[in-house]
Amino acid sequence: MVTPTPADKFTFGLWTIGYNGTDPFGGPTRPPLDVVHAVEKLAEIGAYGLTFHDDDLFAFGSTDAERQKQIDRLKAVLDSTGLTVPMVTTNLFSPPVFKDGGFTSNDRAVRRFALRKVLRQLELGVELGAKTFVMWGGREGAEYDAAKDVRTALERYREAVNLLGQYVIDKGYDIRFAIEPKPNEPRGDILLPTVGHALAFIETLEHPELVGLNPEVGHEQMAGLNFAAGIAQALYHGKLFHIDLNGQRGIKYDQDLVFGHGDLHNAFALVDLLENGGPNGGPSYEGPRHFDYKPSRTEDETGVWDSAAANMRTYLLLKERAAAFRADPEVQEALEAARVFELAQPTLGEGESYDDLLADRSAYEDFDADAYFGAKGFGFVRLQQLATEHLLGAR
Amino acid sequence: MVTPTPADKFTFGLWTIGYNGTDPFGGPTRPPLDVVHAVEKLAEIGAYGLTFHDDDLFAFGSTDAERQKQIDRLKAVLDSTGLTVPMVTTNLFSPPVFKDGGFTSNDRAVRRFALRKVLRQLELGVELGAKTFVMWGGREGAEYDAAKDVRTALERYREAVNLLGQYVIDKGYDIRFAIEPKPNEPRGDILLPTVGHALAFIETLEHPELVGLNPEVGHEQMAGLNFAAGIAQALYHGKLFHIDLNGQRGIKYDQDLVFGHGDLHNAFALVDLLENGGPNGGPSYEGPRHFDYKPSRTEDETGVWDSAAANMRTYLLLKERAAAFRADPEVQEALEAARVFELAQPTLGEGESYDDLLADRSAYEDFDADAYFGAKGFGFVRLQQLATEHLLGAR
Amino acid sequence: MVTPTPADKFTFGLWTIGYNGTDPFGGPTRPPLDVVHAVEKLAEIGAYGLTFHDDDLFAFGSTDAERQKQIDRLKAVLDSTGLTVPMVTTNLFSPPVFKDGGFTSNDRAVRRFALRKVLRQLELGVELGAKTFVMWGGREGAEYDAAKDVRTALERYREAVNLLGQYVIDKGYDIRFAIEPKPNEPRGDILLPTVGHALAFIETLEHPELVGLNPEVGHEQMAGLNFAAGIAQALYHGKLFHIDLNGQRGIKYDQDLVFGHGDLHNAFALVDLLENGGPNGGPSYEGPRHFDYKPSRTEDETGVWDSAAANMRTYLLLKERAAAFRADPEVQEALEAARVFELAQPTLGEGESYDDLLADRSAYEDFDADAYFGAKGFGFVRLQQLATEHLLGAR
Amino acid sequence: MVTPTPADKFTFGLWTIGYNGTDPFGGPTRPPLDVVHAVEKLAEIGAYGLTFHDDDLFAFGSTDAERQKQIDRLKAVLDSTGLTVPMVTTNLFSPPVFKDGGFTSNDRAVRRFALRKVLRQLELGVELGAKTFVMWGGREGAEYDAAKDVRTALERYREAVNLLGQYVIDKGYDIRFAIEPKPNEPRGDILLPTVGHALAFIETLEHPELVGLNPEVGHEQMAGLNFAAGIAQALYHGKLFHIDLNGQRGIKYDQDLVFGHGDLHNAFALVDLLENGGPNGGPSYEGPRHFDYKPSRTEDETGVWDSAAANMRTYLLLKERAAAFRADPEVQEALEAARVFELAQPTLGEGESYDDLLADRSAYEDFDADAYFGAKGFGFVRLQQLATEHLLGAR
Repeated sequence: MVTPTPADKFTFGLWTIGYNGTDPFGGPTRPPLDVVHAVEKLAEIGAYGLTFHDDDLFAFGSTDAERQKQIDRLKAVLDSTGLTVPMVTTNLFSPPVFKDGGFTSNDRAVRRFALRKVLRQLELGVELGAKTFVMWGGREGAEYDAAKDVRTALERYREAVNLLGQYVIDKGYDIRFAIEPKPNEPRGDILLPTVGHALAFIETLEHPELVGLNPEVGHEQMAGLNFAAGIAQALYHGKLFHIDLNGQRGIKYDQDLVFGHGDLHNAFALVDLLENGGPNGGPSYEGPRHFDYKPSRTEDETGVWDSAAANMRTYLLLKERAAAFRADPEVQEALEAARVFELAQPTLGEGESYDDLLADRSAYEDFDADAYFGAKGFGFVRLQQLATEHLLGAR
Repeated sequence: MVTPTPADKFTFGLWTIGYNGTDPFGGPTRPPLDVVHAVEKLAEIGAYGLTFHDDDLFAFGSTDAERQKQIDRLKAVLDSTGLTVPMVTTNLFSPPVFKDGGFTSNDRAVRRFALRKVLRQLELGVELGAKTFVMWGGREGAEYDAAKDVRTALERYREAVNLLGQYVIDKGYDIRFAIEPKPNEPRGDILLPTVGHALAFIETLEHPELVGLNPEVGHEQMAGLNFAAGIAQALYHGKLFHIDLNGQRGIKYDQDLVFGHGDLHNAFALVDLLENGGPNGGPSYEGPRHFDYKPSRTEDETGVWDSAAANMRTYLLLKERAAAFRADPEVQEALEAARVFELAQPTLGEGESYDDLLADRSAYEDFDADAYFGAKGFGFVRLQQLATEHLLGAR
Repeated sequence: MVTPTPADKFTFGLWTIGYNGTDPFGGPTRPPLDVVHAVEKLAEIGAYGLTFHDDDLFAFGSTDAERQKQIDRLKAVLDSTGLTVPMVTTNLFSPPVFKDGGFTSNDRAVRRFALRKVLRQLELGVELGAKTFVMWGGREGAEYDAAKDVRTALERYREAVNLLGQYVIDKGYDIRFAIEPKPNEPRGDILLPTVGHALAFIETLEHPELVGLNPEVGHEQMAGLNFAAGIAQALYHGKLFHIDLNGQRGIKYDQDLVFGHGDLHNAFALVDLLENGGPNGGPSYEGPRHFDYKPSRTEDETGVWDSAAANMRTYLLLKERAAAFRADPEVQEALEAARVFELAQPTLGEGESYDDLLADRSAYEDFDADAYFGAKGFGFVRLQQLATEHLLGAR
Repeated sequence: MVTPTPADKFTFGLWTIGYNGTDPFGGPTRPPLDVVHAVEKLAEIGAYGLTFHDDDLFAFGSTDAERQKQIDRLKAVLDSTGLTVPMVTTNLFSPPVFKDGGFTSNDRAVRRFALRKVLRQLELGVELGAKTFVMWGGREGAEYDAAKDVRTALERYREAVNLLGQYVIDKGYDIRFAIEPKPNEPRGDILLPTVGHALAFIETLEHPELVGLNPEVGHEQMAGLNFAAGIAQALYHGKLFHIDLNGQRGIKYDQDLVFGHGDLHNAFALVDLLENGGPNGGPSYEGPRHFDYKPSRTEDETGVWDSAAANMRTYLLLKERAAAFRADPEVQEALEAARVFELAQPTLGEGESYDDLLADRSAYEDFDADAYFGAKGFGFVRLQQLATEHLLGAR
């Protein structure tokens, strides 16, 4: 029931369970986590896969031999545990060389270096069978408006993603790209700050079909945006290629809490959307449920694995609650009363033209707009209370 | 110099100078402002045009005769003063009938009524010579996730805008649509909450070329987003069709302060972008500088006109400051040192392929990433200080 | 169980259930609610009391006769239903005269008028048996820093509250004052913006014992603050005189949603604090559970009463969940492991002086600070997961 | 003019100019800054003093000899340059031992260790002539409500500060304590999150006269609060013991930008308040102007010193602007018109009692509240425009 299995497709970033506790005001509180141990533990608790940045697996500046050794160790433990690597990504944000970004650094030599680093990690991802290549441009941005010509930066971003797209096409690789938006931190303002900005950018690419999104719960919530609504728009555009689940408590620094330890109502709406696809639909997303969170700095290794398990358990509990919500006849009745299903009916009738609409006196001249005063309530609060009670396990 | 003239293309919404002071905790503090008086005063202080919602000019539910009388009065005063109406828009948010929105109300009859109301106002706009038709969907949204199927709502929104597009094409009207995003208020979450979300939506339309944006300073800032950066992305997509200038002091309720009475650094960056188009460019936007602000509720009519004048005066002062900033040789030198211009250079050389890049050892194998530690600073803070001192009129 | 009774002490503002739907972008969607009908309905759904501003009961500017008629009608229905009026408050924010505030308006005549209006409502409150007089200074503030001398404004605020305090002492009235903080809206910045600022102000009064707080969930959350933590500090100072329960979804305009329809984790922590008083304690607050919310503008009268009932039902459900949380042996074990109880142990031993501490080598010289690296985790995430599962009704 | 001298009392934290660029997503971009070099450079650019945490000067875990060596080196360079150390503070947040805080860690041994560490640094501060001891409790807080009993945590905080107060009294030390509030980061919620909460807490202490505040621009702005207004309240309570100047661009992670590179309007209001003390007053604060900022991670050492100079230069420019603002007769006239001075007049006349007020029919019965509709405007927008134009150096 709420015991995770690989069929649930729960995946974890190596940097998540491996987070050592460093933050802006303190150093590590935990030692490094070896990848082999990490994968074994993930397998033990029911995860489906591991994801990683290049520098998570082998330190920036590793020799080829050091790098290969780590790759081999990873492969061996993937084999022995059955875990997969459905996604990889590149670190273009930690080393000093990327202090003004990677693809959009004002420094051209850095941009070239960034492209090379990405191509190398892309090859590794393909080799490991990854189907998604995530691009979080956390350092692509600025603190000061005069320091970055945003239109030109978008053009450089586009140049980079176009090159990568052509590369995988030419090589025949079965992998797609997923851009991860974030409004700020570590830069004052980051390029492509929200799901919307990234969706718009993708449409300017030479091969938009290759590029989608990897939205993260906390990132949208750092802009005060409704995450489930953003995911719905991403789905509308056919661009939900991957997803980062975690928890955030409002507009502040990036907290990366356990999924469900942030905005619980929105987490419920999100799981309902992913699993049930909105009113009476089926699943809307089939990919990995990827947790991009940080075990709190107060925890030791026991706390790390407790927190990993908590992510999965909360997801499964919310999945149960969402199924019960949809199955409740009173909820169905309330949805009907709130005219939620009526929205699916086109505004114009089949074959109706605007001339027909203009000629329809019932639509305007004879329409009783005053009838909506003090009447024709939508019953939205009742619906929300039903959702709340299902969320609380009280129905 | 800083005395506005119609050549500056400053325009005002009738609802701005006409704002009566009503807010969530209090009723009007000022009587209604007659449109004839409003236009005469705007002409007097150097404005270029007036904009309005249908219900600003004639109350919702007016008879045809009442409506026509107001239109005639407006036309007469436009004639006598020389003011223009470059933009109109429709009120789909105040009357009770729109309590769940217009184009995306769950109630189909409301959606039909909304379309009719918009078509009628569109005709009036065309008649008055407006070139832009703004759509602010302030009631298109929800407070509760279960109450609105977002994907279906986007589909209804799309149906409406497609119909409008086809209508102006068929009629041969010279008018374009501009969507105005807003994250929340009056709804808990509004559809198309940011510049990015609206840009992405436009790409799904049958005639995307007809539809652009009308971004508002305060609306993006209510999501903590950098307005000038958002405008730069809108320009990148060729979608800055119109602009709403005002002031906002951070993430809170929609303040609609005078332009420049909010985030002054970003206002400076914005005017620099509009007038100078980024590093060494020319103007990036030629349309009206439209003020969508509210004279504070504490003011009487004197304060209304003082505040209208303040908007224009601040814009012109910032335009002066931005010109001096760009003309300052030390600024040019600092931009050069910050490698701002280097970003315009493509990352790949002319004719260079990814194979060439992969073969370039200087780009990766021999690249000295460590050289960026403790050196190769970008000098961004110095650049920001130069901007600050120009803004303060101290250079 | 989750059926409210007067013993639960649930109270409602007349302006809450009576909210007509007016917001900054639209007029009323519902007709006025008569006070007699309101009280009868509240009695029917299990409420304990009604609260009101003067202007809720009789319109601003009413004649004495009109006013008295409404008071008499209220008294009659209180008698017939058994409902109480445990709190009253004054409207110093809606009429134009208060456009710059009441107690701290720059205009002295307004300040005098405000005091008179408050004294009159105070008399009525005493007459009706109210034990708490709430002061929400929503218009006490400014949009512009130069417009309000904050220190002088605080001095005027103090003058007003001192006068009121002396008045009730002299009259021998059994009523206390409760200040309700709010950071902004309708003013750009409001005086005494948070629980903390108001607590500090109270200490400057001549009779601080007469004045406490009426904190509102959404108001603190509009500043991104943790409401339950703020209530804990108010309790620490002995100043939780009254409480306003509602829901808010992050930093934005004041939403006044149903209690529990906002931040559910914090609502759980709040109910746990009020009912269980923190780790292993008893109730920490005995006063009315007052709902200061707004039935959404989309609702008709059915929705009004559904929403009123939802507030109470969610509170009672959270009370159940909190009781189960505290009773769960695994929770107790996790609290012990997280050393939550150890915080109650003073840092110095009984009778220990700082000299003793300085002489204790185990406290510093021999203390093994390194032992906290990679070990001695607090298990906070596990504790939060236990709370989450209790909240979800899953344990 | 705008060239800083020691008479301006500009001070810098060693951790500010010494910030190595580490942030949540990247390691250092600059090497360590030696204290001797730092003090020499500060002297060169016109600073008055240096401040530091113990661990800034000598690494956590240093031997006594290592520690003393660094103290001696600091003393020597203070002697040779004439710089002072007006403030010191303790690091209770970086090492793993403080992962749940110092004074309020759930772990009693940690609390004892923290007190010892503070006492040691206090002795060093006194030895160096510091008059202020700052306490920023950045780790005193929690991510999860059940993990921290807030009332008990406040009691432990109080125990610690009471002990420190008694210690300096007994020793006869001429030093005072200043609490620095912050709402969040690095903890999800921090105890004493705002100026207000800390002011209230101070009143519970055994020796409140020894304890004041060290408010930081960005910290209050991270809660969306008006910093200048908060400082005014701190002054009202006589508690502005020290101040941290920097820049922040809205509600997000702690940016620690250069002073004036954030909210420029509020920076202007702040400098006006500190230097001119509000309407027509004198200076309201005589202590150090302390910059607690971070040179951006993109900068090398040149950028570090450019940014240090920028802080001072912007302060002096704003001081000039504020002086001109106050000296402008039109501003004086606008303040008069806005009735800003009238607020200083008590609401009751000299010797007037509430009975007199109740008997004054002109105050209520004959008061014309309707006269404020459409008239008696305050002219606040005009005043703000005058402030804006002075800020822009345009008057």
